[in-house]
Amino acid sequence: MRLYWLHKAMNPTTRTSERNSDKLLFTPGPLTTSATVKAAMLRDLGSRDYEFIATVRAIRQKLLAIGGQPDESLYTTILLPGSGTYGVEAALSSIVPANGRLLLIVNGAYGKRMMKIAAVHKIETQVLSYAENVIPDLSAIEAALAADNTITTVAVVHCETTTGILNPIAAIGALVKSFGQTYIVDAMSSFGAIPIDLAACHIDYLISSSNKCIEGVPGFSFTLARKDGLIAAEGHARSLSLDLVAQWRELDASGQFRFTPPTHTLLAFHQALLELEAEGGVDGRAARYKANHDVLMYGMQAMGFRAYLAPDVSSYIISTVYYPTHPNFSFERFYQTLNEKGYVIYPGKLGEVDCFRIGNIGRLYPADLEGLLAAVQETLHVMQIPQLGLEAR
Amino acid sequence: MRLYWLHKAMNPTTRTSERNSDKLLFTPGPLTTSATVKAAMLRDLGSRDYEFIATVRAIRQKLLAIGGQPDESLYTTILLPGSGTYGVEAALSSIVPANGRLLLIVNGAYGKRMMKIAAVHKIETQVLSYAENVIPDLSAIEAALAADNTITTVAVVHCETTTGILNPIAAIGALVKSFGQTYIVDAMSSFGAIPIDLAACHIDYLISSSNKCIEGVPGFSFTLARKDGLIAAEGHARSLSLDLVAQWRELDASGQFRFTPPTHTLLAFHQALLELEAEGGVDGRAARYKANHDVLMYGMQAMGFRAYLAPDVSSYIISTVYYPTHPNFSFERFYQTLNEKGYVIYPGKLGEVDCFRIGNIGRLYPADLEGLLAAVQETLHVMQIPQLGLEAR
Repeated sequence: MRLYWLHKAMNPTTRTSERNSDKLLFTPGPLTTSATVKAAMLRDLGSRDYEFIATVRAIRQKLLAIGGQPDESLYTTILLPGSGTYGVEAALSSIVPANGRLLLIVNGAYGKRMMKIAAVHKIETQVLSYAENVIPDLSAIEAALAADNTITTVAVVHCETTTGILNPIAAIGALVKSFGQTYIVDAMSSFGAIPIDLAACHIDYLISSSNKCIEGVPGFSFTLARKDGLIAAEGHARSLSLDLVAQWRELDASGQFRFTPPTHTLLAFHQALLELEAEGGVDGRAARYKANHDVLMYGMQAMGFRAYLAPDVSSYIISTVYYPTHPNFSFERFYQTLNEKGYVIYPGKLGEVDCFRIGNIGRLYPADLEGLLAAVQETLHVMQIPQLGLEAR
Repeated sequence: MRLYWLHKAMNPTTRTSERNSDKLLFTPGPLTTSATVKAAMLRDLGSRDYEFIATVRAIRQKLLAIGGQPDESLYTTILLPGSGTYGVEAALSSIVPANGRLLLIVNGAYGKRMMKIAAVHKIETQVLSYAENVIPDLSAIEAALAADNTITTVAVVHCETTTGILNPIAAIGALVKSFGQTYIVDAMSSFGAIPIDLAACHIDYLISSSNKCIEGVPGFSFTLARKDGLIAAEGHARSLSLDLVAQWRELDASGQFRFTPPTHTLLAFHQALLELEAEGGVDGRAARYKANHDVLMYGMQAMGFRAYLAPDVSSYIISTVYYPTHPNFSFERFYQTLNEKGYVIYPGKLGEVDCFRIGNIGRLYPADLEGLLAAVQETLHVMQIPQLGLEAR
């Protein structure tokens, strides 16, 4: 029943000294961040200040390096205030030409959100739609590209936060490249914790945000973009604030934002990038998140919970778990009880299946996941829901 | 020559204990904020957390109260991630109907920015354009409304940050109302420090941002909006992220944002609102900013600087000053020298006139303006530019 405690010996790291009294966030973001990331916000820098401009410069370079492009010959980084969705909307609405046609590969809520963005901007769109626990079919993507030579742009979500499913962005990129089209990847929940080589994946635009695996606080999105694509997209923008090309031009020309940047959030993000480097970069972070995920899923399954995704398609970013079938289970009560114990989990976002989600990302260590598992166990006890051991399944 | 020191007796307040070592920002924002506002960001709250939702709720109510609408019967508050420009774009692009026609009253860079927003969204626009130091002509506005009954929406900037000029929003509102049109006011630089009664000014949409006179940190805009107008604008939005009506619906339905909110920025803003109340609300803040402005302009003029605006059209928010005509003056050197002394001023934004700007807003006290004046005096001395006393002018 307490098999997961065996993992404790494997994952001895606890960093409670970093913590204030806030609840731990097992969510897709905003996340639990380090005390030092938050402390970086205790300053007021002017948006034209030399130090601030140098910080923005360093952020842009470090992000490119994470994407495998440490020099800036082919790619550039564009920082844009707002949430991740703003970044995705900026890319789609700034890049697809007026007479362009978009192929969207959808197996979750964030793919569907791209459909909404395309619709509001009246972008012609073809959708390849899959169930939320199914990886898109490469041969269907190839057939769609072969059948319609008016497609200009293909977009897909890397790690669908809806479920945690991980889509094959490299294989899709090779197909998109073979047809000479533009490739947009929403890497919101993966960038910084799952290795991505921009060039090897043939990515033209990769979008992520400040409050995901880099472990900053929310406030802006960033896009890693091929410069030749940006130059070709000049004049396509359908918005002023979300004009990705204009934002790039100003960042390159003056080092500044066109409009007021979230200065404090950017200072926090710079600190978060330094802490990512100190952890061993993407590989080091991936190792911690994998350990978090393994501890979590082993423990949850030992208590009788079932994972929504098959292990071979699941990421180590966020985990989706079915509601227990026991009649005593109420998600609201389960969530509230865990919340009162200091553990914040996340509701599901699936259309037809009753699930909830537990994030493995942010400044969380395996010991924190063990703490969560103990709280889940206590909560099931309070709700009078019997547990199943791994042995019984 | 040092006449402005006379003001010291009048304005004895110094709060240096609140300060870290950062430079003081005499800018239009981001601003110098209090240590307690920044410290409010030392937490990680989930975006669905009960405490966070209650904080968002309190922010929305307090903002309405500042606009003279403490109950929520007629008006509501919509918080939207991004800079102030996002808020203005959200209002224009979410409210003006597809066949609508916009009348823009323009006497500065932020009026021109609304022209750009209208253009990118292909909104039919008529512009009444004035010089940057001239108040719009009410009879011309009335004539424009009378001459064209296809106008649906009128928009103006309250305090043009370009110069600090203060436009007559109440008188314009009365005209707009008499023609039954929708009235949008960009109150970015004024809200919280210049009293505005939404109903008395007949304002349908007022937009401001987190990093202006409320003295929060940058990261979101807010719009105070008449609910009947929002209901009528359903379906007009031209963007997903900037859809003001959808954002309102979700904030009202669940208390949550549609997309990841800048949680830390919102916590800081709530603290800033408490500190505004502690200062005596808008009247208390206005008194401090007026004192800042008076100290500044008296001292600058005593050194021979000339104000760009006539006193009767100037706000106490930001002050625009002509470059000295002396051949030794270089703005870059002047700016850099002040910067090294810990005082950050702001370049001009005027098309044809060489000016710079000094902000009076943020957590600055008259003693800080006196410090700036002393630094300006030292800088002129270093640049070998002789000063003129008030006596000599």
